[in-house]
Amino acid sequence: MESRIPTATVARLSKYLSILDGRQDPSVSSNELAQRSGSNSAQVRKDLSYLGAAGTRGVGYETEMLRSIIRRTLGLATERPVVIVGAGNLGTALARYPGFARRGFCISGLFDDSPAVVGTTVAGHVVQPMDALTTVVDQPDLAIGIMAVPAEAAQSVAELLVEAGFRSILNFAPTTVRVSDEVRVRPVDLATELHILSHHLARQDRPETR
Amino acid sequence: MESRIPTATVARLSKYLSILDGRQDPSVSSNELAQRSGSNSAQVRKDLSYLGAAGTRGVGYETEMLRSIIRRTLGLATERPVVIVGAGNLGTALARYPGFARRGFCISGLFDDSPAVVGTTVAGHVVQPMDALTTVVDQPDLAIGIMAVPAEAAQSVAELLVEAGFRSILNFAPTTVRVSDEVRVRPVDLATELHILSHHLARQDRPETR
Repeated sequence: MESRIPTATVARLSKYLSILDGRQDPSVSSNELAQRSGSNSAQVRKDLSYLGAAGTRGVGYETEMLRSIIRRTLGLATERPVVIVGAGNLGTALARYPGFARRGFCISGLFDDSPAVVGTTVAGHVVQPMDALTTVVDQPDLAIGIMAVPAEAAQSVAELLVEAGFRSILNFAPTTVRVSDEVRVRPVDLATELHILSHHLARQDRPETR
Repeated sequence: MESRIPTATVARLSKYLSILDGRQDPSVSSNELAQRSGSNSAQVRKDLSYLGAAGTRGVGYETEMLRSIIRRTLGLATERPVVIVGAGNLGTALARYPGFARRGFCISGLFDDSPAVVGTTVAGHVVQPMDALTTVVDQPDLAIGIMAVPAEAAQSVAELLVEAGFRSILNFAPTTVRVSDEVRVRPVDLATELHILSHHLARQDRPETR
């Protein structure tokens, strides 16, 4: 049942989970989830139907049950380890990002190749040299590697992560990396987000679309 | 013709532009754009048809013409000003991010409310106090405000940006902000990206989906 959930739905499930995590009430309506996530209630019901979760008319969904189903769907039944490669400003910001720990991820290690940085402490983690990558998590194929490195270092860091057994990589470097097909690389291109906003501004600029 | 371009297409246009920007050849094929952007050529042709761009069979698209059309569609006919609020690690990383200037955005100012930070220089910008927000760009409604602030500061910073005339906000704070309908806020939730990867890992964990 969970085998073909669209990525856009997974992204919204992540939002619903953060709403549920701050919630005391025993039940929650699709309408409330919709309003607080910027969606609509038909979409919420459709998203949750992928998980086999059905609400009760007039009552909604059981908060605890829904939280548990979404966490399982998102692979968060246990805390998922994350390593961060690159202890510059971005890596440091990510290591300090309060959203990770709260949302089912634990930072298992912070790595850098600069001798000036290795051994310093960032957000409670001692920065480790790159060759310690292989020792930091028991099952690297179930962990996520975050690359917060400059473009020119990205390819070699991706290869080191793959060599260390990682199969899921979040790439913040402003470049594409090539790895084998069984490795999933999700690029986070910060300029793309600006382009999407800019495109909408450009449409507003033109009188004919007003 | 450009009035109803899907957001997923806009995101891919951003990728195509970065490929074109590094290109010397006078022409480019949909196949090459597809391979280098991780898409397929039918998708590339469909995306570009939204802009009215048609390739020539066996030759492809004229590089310079395509670059110019995509830049106009993304609202980059002139450089678009961006301000960054929050000069912590994330704001500093963003101010230094090489992808912005290269992709049509110029950082017009970096702001912080901490007296300890105001007046220091980050990536060539003197950090300014929040009340200077209103003076930094001529047409704030055509600029983009980036919020790189803690969750607890997000709502008040969003209100300051709106008050200063900004109508497009990129929100990195791990929380939702409420602003009036004519203001477009695009949230960047870093945990969502991890959830998407984690969901795929969870599917791999289960033997029945192998």
